Amino acid sequence: MSTPDLAVIGGGQLARMMQQAAIGMGVRIRLLAESPDVSAAQVVTDHIVGDYTDLDVLRNAVADAPVVTFDHEHVPPEHLAALQSEGHDCRPGPHALLFAQDKSEMRTRLGELGIPCPRNAPVGSVAELDDFAAAAGGYPVVIKTTRGGYDGKGVWMVGSATDAEEAFASHRQLIVEEKVDFVRELSALVARSPSGESRSYPVVESRQVNGVCKEVIAPAPGLDSSLEASAQDIAATVADRLDVTGILAVELFETRDGRILVNELAMRPHNTGHWTIDGAHTSQFENHLRAVLDLPLGPTTARAKWTVMVNILGGAVDNLQAQAATVLTAEPGVKVHLYGKAVEAGRKVGHVTAYGNDLAAVQKSARRAAQLFETGHSEAGRLEVKES
Amino acid sequence: MSTPDLAVIGGGQLARMMQQAAIGMGVRIRLLAESPDVSAAQVVTDHIVGDYTDLDVLRNAVADAPVVTFDHEHVPPEHLAALQSEGHDCRPGPHALLFAQDKSEMRTRLGELGIPCPRNAPVGSVAELDDFAAAAGGYPVVIKTTRGGYDGKGVWMVGSATDAEEAFASHRQLIVEEKVDFVRELSALVARSPSGESRSYPVVESRQVNGVCKEVIAPAPGLDSSLEASAQDIAATVADRLDVTGILAVELFETRDGRILVNELAMRPHNTGHWTIDGAHTSQFENHLRAVLDLPLGPTTARAKWTVMVNILGGAVDNLQAQAATVLTAEPGVKVHLYGKAVEAGRKVGHVTAYGNDLAAVQKSARRAAQLFETGHSEAGRLEVKES
Repeated sequence: MSTPDLAVIGGGQLARMMQQAAIGMGVRIRLLAESPDVSAAQVVTDHIVGDYTDLDVLRNAVADAPVVTFDHEHVPPEHLAALQSEGHDCRPGPHALLFAQDKSEMRTRLGELGIPCPRNAPVGSVAELDDFAAAAGGYPVVIKTTRGGYDGKGVWMVGSATDAEEAFASHRQLIVEEKVDFVRELSALVARSPSGESRSYPVVESRQVNGVCKEVIAPAPGLDSSLEASAQDIAATVADRLDVTGILAVELFETRDGRILVNELAMRPHNTGHWTIDGAHTSQFENHLRAVLDLPLGPTTARAKWTVMVNILGGAVDNLQAQAATVLTAEPGVKVHLYGKAVEAGRKVGHVTAYGNDLAAVQKSARRAAQLFETGHSEAGRLEVKES
Repeated sequence: MSTPDLAVIGGGQLARMMQQAAIGMGVRIRLLAESPDVSAAQVVTDHIVGDYTDLDVLRNAVADAPVVTFDHEHVPPEHLAALQSEGHDCRPGPHALLFAQDKSEMRTRLGELGIPCPRNAPVGSVAELDDFAAAAGGYPVVIKTTRGGYDGKGVWMVGSATDAEEAFASHRQLIVEEKVDFVRELSALVARSPSGESRSYPVVESRQVNGVCKEVIAPAPGLDSSLEASAQDIAATVADRLDVTGILAVELFETRDGRILVNELAMRPHNTGHWTIDGAHTSQFENHLRAVLDLPLGPTTARAKWTVMVNILGGAVDNLQAQAATVLTAEPGVKVHLYGKAVEAGRKVGHVTAYGNDLAAVQKSARRAAQLFETGHSEAGRLEVKES
């Protein structure tokens, strides 16, 4: 194997889609994969299998790679600091990743920067919880583990202190946040390079089902232009002040009273940016690579008036490859993205994207294609989402 | 390794770009590569290194693959027939590939089908050559080897029988063709599946330098709509009557007197279709895979008013990866495609694509980016092509 340009830690679908972009750019990726069969290991020839929590494994994987980036935010910060000190440029670096790894650190830092967030506080007891709820206007409130939560895991909506038993029983560090009265969720993606160039993508609407992203509409329909500017400004400010390199995704609430509040940060390509592969002039994966390699960034504008991405969550269909014939017969114009993962209930196993001038038609196509992949039949574009 | 969906014979850039499309579709490719370092072997995990002229090597490579397709047309037809008889679906099949492998067979068959071609004949002696030239209106004429020619190799422009010495000395089977008085070269691509579905791409103009494709403009500027329809009809007819599966590229002459004549056939994704990756709703690579796997085809229309692809031919710049920073600084909006090949003079090592509403601006961007990759500096979009 020749020397890689870049090491990627983690072999999920994000690394897989980075590899698609890397092939085009002639960028050679070394992958550290969790097992030989994970999504990205199937398509990155130069991969090593090992445990990313083991520093020696990490050292071996990145040995001849000048730059290191990530499929997820779970690499222990002290290991990243070690790799940095040994001459590898971790992008994003541990000083930035901390704020994607720890929600308490994130809330504190964003507060210092004056970035609008839901009211929040660390919480360690029922008394503290009751005090916070009283100050925040009452229950319900949201409890989150400070580390390790994703896709709705590590999050509890509690209507009273009694509901918080499971959270406290987890013996994890917790924070509590006000339950935001939001009309919908938005996401603002920005790509930022070490030399400081940054480019913002159009702000999108994301729809969750049971805490998992199900559908993304680009751009967010009817979004007030000042709110879009505000969302992009928040993302650019966070990227700059936290010194994020690569893609930063800022998940946002649009509140009923017309404000934008930061929900979560992710420092890597993000599910709410998958639409960019087919719908933007430069995909988030290409711009992530360009950013972490400190190459000039590509244009982030949309190529179509509307682009809709719908996740394929594991369902009744086991063989997605075989199902593609049915899906493409029904919807020959949708773009299919399968991740090479075994189908398990609710697991993100792929996504489909449709684009065009008519949002209703685009949305119907994407939903129908995803449903055909999930259930084997379609129900006229029905999607069980928490409608705004 | 799990069972492949598809075996691809040949590890050049066409197989590499097929892999990009395959990753998206979740299609698992088994590659037979000429050496461990070739373009596609770098990015297809499941590859075998071996000689595609050795039937046992082929058998081993395709063992568990139901479908076989190709990066090139050089696999011996008798080997393809053997693989077919052993239960593998070769797409295209040997009965079709013959006409891409042998120019004499191609001319004869196209003649039978009434497809317009340059006047042509087999030629084995100076007397036959003189007779042909006399009947065709005089020298110069073009001599071609019936097999194995590409990128200007195996082609001789001869002004008299004396010029034909090298051709005759090659002891190859030869044909002679009239030198067509053409204003430009066009290319018509069509995707066709085993079940008979076919979709035509917009007809493009291709510009050659020293017999090598240098630039492609999509769609062909100012092309008369009846000539475009005629070119697409020729491609669809050839695909259908020769039972081609996958992409068929028909290279055409547009003559000074307003006719379309077939120059060459290629039965695989083609250099004149690289623009489709960034410029069409479905790339030729995705539609090649969809066709050979007998999946419904995707829309072949253009996404931009104008798309220009310029090949990067090996030049003064050795490290293309390092040069990307310079290129993308100058032209952040071009799409870069590098093939992972060592730079050798004149070798196709990558391509760039630009698109937009203003042809002159698009062309300038693409040419400038390619020149920066070739020479390290740009000369205001100058391109040494045989101008029409």
